[in-house]
Order: sequence, then structure tokens, then C-alpha cells
Amino acid sequence: MSKELPITERTRLRRKNERGYYDRETIDAILDAMPMCHVGYVIDGSPVVMPTFQWREGDHVYWHASNAGRGLRAAEGTAVCLTVSLLDGLVLARTGLNHSANFRSVMIFGQPRKITEPDRKADLLNGMIDAFYPGRSTILRPMAESDIKQTALLSLPIEEASAKMREGGPIDEEEDYALPIWAGTVPVKMQMMPPVPDPRNLDGVEMPEHVTSIKFG
Amino acid sequence: MSKELPITERTRLRRKNERGYYDRETIDAILDAMPMCHVGYVIDGSPVVMPTFQWREGDHVYWHASNAGRGLRAAEGTAVCLTVSLLDGLVLARTGLNHSANFRSVMIFGQPRKITEPDRKADLLNGMIDAFYPGRSTILRPMAESDIKQTALLSLPIEEASAKMREGGPIDEEEDYALPIWAGTVPVKMQMMPPVPDPRNLDGVEMPEHVTSIKFG
Repeated sequence: MSKELPITERTRLRRKNERGYYDRETIDAILDAMPMCHVGYVIDGSPVVMPTFQWREGDHVYWHASNAGRGLRAAEGTAVCLTVSLLDGLVLARTGLNHSANFRSVMIFGQPRKITEPDRKADLLNGMIDAFYPGRSTILRPMAESDIKQTALLSLPIEEASAKMREGGPIDEEEDYALPIWAGTVPVKMQMMPPVPDPRNLDGVEMPEHVTSIKFG
Repeated sequence: MSKELPITERTRLRRKNERGYYDRETIDAILDAMPMCHVGYVIDGSPVVMPTFQWREGDHVYWHASNAGRGLRAAEGTAVCLTVSLLDGLVLARTGLNHSANFRSVMIFGQPRKITEPDRKADLLNGMIDAFYPGRSTILRPMAESDIKQTALLSLPIEEASAKMREGGPIDEEEDYALPIWAGTVPVKMQMMPPVPDPRNLDGVEMPEHVTSIKFG
């Protein structure tokens, strides 16, 4: 059985709580399906929501930022909320307010920790490449120490977290089903399109399998 | 010429500022391309990032929430950050830290206003339906007053906002172009799949054009 996380004041779903999940299997599957996330910081008292990429390794999610950025300065030692969302469909009902969306989302709350040990940082950054493109880190020019230094790497434990999902068709009032109104769902997919090789690739360099097999969503 | 917004302490891009845009044409195009957004609130001192749908009407974006939800309570009279992001591609370079993503995003800062006047609320909620599915509000069962009452509708002026974009292929160090490493871009698209009619649709009810013509992304 997948590990259940404790429900806290921040992760408890107030509304439509049948859509809430607190088990790691559900949470991890959503985190692994979508690299793009939105990290919320509080900067000078006001919220700032920045899009970035996250990846998971075991019980933590990681993201990186420039050491010069304000997100990083805000993140050190203060609470963040990291949210990952996938839009799976548009739900058209028979009255306006029954319209909805199918989605999967995860919210993680906590205090990020900055990874400073250079070897650990390099390992994790290579882990990021391999999380998205399995095996790719081994064929790359190794990262320069100075580049690693300029990059801040943050980790957040998956401890205070919840998932939320909706799937299926519209749910209308019983009497509305008698109306001659088209209702239904329009599924939405994140689609990887044919890769575009860099014009400066050397002759004879073939597209690796980790490019052709990318699958998010 | 498209209206330029003033650059504030919150919207000024600190890094890679060649990717920043402050004109309404660019900002509006991104807002209109993607209904999904992430709204950041500060609740009891900690950030909370909630996915929801936004739509634009003129100089404002709107979103709705349950009157029972905590987002709404947090949003009234306090600052929010509303961020819309589209992932357009994965960028694979010749060394780890030159990997990137193509994207379009908008951040809007401000204090949301709650729309309370019932007729205005109904008009705006119908406007939401029509923003996503042109003309659909006219064929629906009108929204019940009680449902409108239970729904909180928030508006945010597009005054303190900026857009950020990246497009194109990888940018590597000059000496790395001599390496036999495949580099390039994998474009990502938000794809609408074939609509799934509700099994309870009445016989003979045809799929309207506003369903077949949906185009986000």
C-alpha cells in the first residue's frame, strides 16, 4: 500500500473533498507526469508565483534557480507552496456553473533547503537531466564547476502535500438532462511534437532514444 | 501601438531581461491562449498556489471560486499574483545547465475585487462561458440565482503585469558546438482531442461548432 501523508490544516481539502488524495503513489505519479510547476513565495509581504521545472528523486522534489534571482532569496528559510497541475479536459454541462475541468494537481507545502555541497549538487543536476531524458547526462559535456556554483538548487520534502483530481463527464441537475443541449468532455493532451535538431549538430549525430521517447502528461 | 505597462519593482525582470515584455498585446495574447492559471495567495503568512481558470474581458482578468473556499477569503482585500504559463518546448543542449524550456508566461500582481452585483455577476459568468465556447451561454439553461450567489467572482486589473517568453533552439558555448552531441528542441503542444459526448445527451442533439473549434495553446 502506498504511504499516506498526514492531513494538515494546509493540505486538508475544504470543498469537494472526494477529489482529494494524500497517498504518495497518487502524488508521485502527478509530480512525475509534469515537469512544469508553479512555486509561490512571499516577497515583501506579497505573493509571487513563478513557473519553473521540478523533478522528483525519492521523497523530495527539486528545482533550480539562478543565485541572482529573487525567488531564491525569498525561498531560503521561508515557506513555499509548489503546485503541479495538468489540464486533462474541458467539461461542458447544461448550465453555466456546472461547467468544469478535468485535471490532476499536487500542492506541496514546506520550507525548501538549499543544496550547497558541490558534488551532491552536480549529482542532482545530472539527475534532473536523466529524469527528463533517461541516460542523457552521460553523453553531455560535464557541467563546469563555475556554472554549478552560479546555480542554486532547492529541495522540498514531500511531507505536507495533497493531490486533487477530477475526471469524467459533466454532472448536471437531474431535470436538466431533459434539455436538448449538447454536453460532454473535450479531452486535452500535452503532446510532444517531432523533435527539431539544432542546425549546428554535427553530421552523422543521430537523435538519441531519450529524445524520441519523451512522454509527459 | 500596443499599450506599454509601467515597470514596477514586482514586474521588472531581474535576469535575462531580453525575455521580458510589458506591452498589453503580448500579455493579452498569452492570457487568451491559456485558461489555466495559478493564483498565489498569502494565507496565515504562508504562500498558497491554487490552479484555476481565468478569462479576460478588456482590461481585467476574472476567476471564480466557491464562497466557501479559503482562496476567496484570502483574496479579499489582499494582494495576489496570478500567473499563466504555457510550455512550448523542451530545449536540449550540449551541457546540462544549457538545457532550457520554451515557454510563454504572464504574471499579474494586484488586489482582486469581488464582484457582488448579481446582474453584473451573471453577465460576467456568461462571458466566461462565451470566452471559452463562443455563443454557448445562449443555448444553456440560465444560471440559477442561488448558484450565482454561491459563486464568488474576482477581478484583477491588468495594470501591474509582465510577460516572459523563450523560443528557439539551444544556446551553447561556442566550443561545445564541436562535440558530437545531439542537441535540439522538442516542441510541446496543448492538443484538444476528439470530444466525448455525454451518454445522456438527447437523441438528435448535434455537437455545436463551439465544441469542434476549441483552440487553446
